[in-house]
Amino acid sequence: MKNIILVGSGNVATHLGIALKNSNYSIVQVYSRSIENAKKLANKLNTEFTNDLTQLKSADLIIVSVNDDAISNVLSQIKDTAIVHTSGSIGLNVFKGNFSNFGVFYPLQTFNKEVDLDTSEIPFCIEGSSLVFEKQLIKIAKKLSVNVVTMNYEQRKQLHIAAVFACNFSNQMFSIAEDLLKEKNLDFEILLPLIKQTISKLENNKPKTVQTGPAKRNDTNVIEQHINGIKKQEIKDLYQKISSNIIKTHE
Amino acid sequence: MKNIILVGSGNVATHLGIALKNSNYSIVQVYSRSIENAKKLANKLNTEFTNDLTQLKSADLIIVSVNDDAISNVLSQIKDTAIVHTSGSIGLNVFKGNFSNFGVFYPLQTFNKEVDLDTSEIPFCIEGSSLVFEKQLIKIAKKLSVNVVTMNYEQRKQLHIAAVFACNFSNQMFSIAEDLLKEKNLDFEILLPLIKQTISKLENNKPKTVQTGPAKRNDTNVIEQHINGIKKQEIKDLYQKISSNIIKTHE
Repeated sequence: MKNIILVGSGNVATHLGIALKNSNYSIVQVYSRSIENAKKLANKLNTEFTNDLTQLKSADLIIVSVNDDAISNVLSQIKDTAIVHTSGSIGLNVFKGNFSNFGVFYPLQTFNKEVDLDTSEIPFCIEGSSLVFEKQLIKIAKKLSVNVVTMNYEQRKQLHIAAVFACNFSNQMFSIAEDLLKEKNLDFEILLPLIKQTISKLENNKPKTVQTGPAKRNDTNVIEQHINGIKKQEIKDLYQKISSNIIKTHE
Repeated sequence: MKNIILVGSGNVATHLGIALKNSNYSIVQVYSRSIENAKKLANKLNTEFTNDLTQLKSADLIIVSVNDDAISNVLSQIKDTAIVHTSGSIGLNVFKGNFSNFGVFYPLQTFNKEVDLDTSEIPFCIEGSSLVFEKQLIKIAKKLSVNVVTMNYEQRKQLHIAAVFACNFSNQMFSIAEDLLKEKNLDFEILLPLIKQTISKLENNKPKTVQTGPAKRNDTNVIEQHINGIKKQEIKDLYQKISSNIIKTHE
């Protein structure tokens, strides 16, 4: 599998294209429904482009990186070729009936087109329609990253929920801290050393084993003082509910 | 202010003692109510020790690093000397009537006696009974860290609440993610690259401006799917409440 077509020209397609080219894969064509976007990415990758799915060249693999909603429509216009999509939320079902070798090639990361990205530590979550095809996909992913795992649809869905807690919700905790500090004319930056220490503990420990703080100690005096000290009812509620959850976790 | 007495032999006293000694301050004596602990820390600092507060030598500054509950009792046995405590939760009131120069010297960090610690980036939160004395305390703190701020009692209390959100509660989000992944035989480590990226964004951005995910996009379909996909009622509730809070934040 050396000759690859990219269907899509967004963040994922862009970073995958660059990483694959750097790993000596040949990107033979880029498709985008917008000819300008197809051209822009094709220029970056020094290859051909089209905005017509009936004009795809022959290749060893087609990587479909379009919006979840568009995948099914795009697939209906592509003739049988080894093919993957890059979505965490869509199963293998979407391919069925039309393709012999199909799979998922899902990089777990928030991509941003304008920022250079080193893919070498990004987890790639792989699923193939057969063990043989899955092995071929793993081989490609291992050229891009040290972090390659096979994963089924149920696992990918759960991983997405877990990522919401670990990234979006932890970031909201930082955001609430920022607001609390602002009320007393303090800058969020003062918390950065403590946050970095919290994260660096995770390198060698599971989060549960390194929990600290009043809820972990079930220190009801401090918890009550804190809840009384918070102005907004919604933030009081969150403090109370997350503390209860910590207390339960460490019972 | 060159000659310092440490009252206390716990995590904070130990790390402050080492950092002060490394910055060419002279620790003239260590007190602990346990003579063994006093001796242990005194040996580390190559100085004298006692378990009797009436036997304190004369010094330029006494640093009281004992449990919050014990501060008041300890202070009642010390004769008027320039003095600070290291607690985030106790105000200047505790000194009043008995001391001429007093203050707070509060390092914002989770200390662990057994682990070497570089104090150079730890925020030191300083409050003094007078501007002149505060300046002297700032001068000492600046020998230990680049990150020195003056802060009153109200600000320190709020900082503590903010730190609970930013550290304890974000860690609980990681812990919930760990449990969710375990249900589907996935390891928490797969999330580490994404978590590190989330944190590295905070170096140059406020948390609110770098929020991502379904709640930020107000993507009610995905939010509903996720809530349906979570087994435990308590975790469903947290997902729902934190998502609402994110949606409100970005309205």
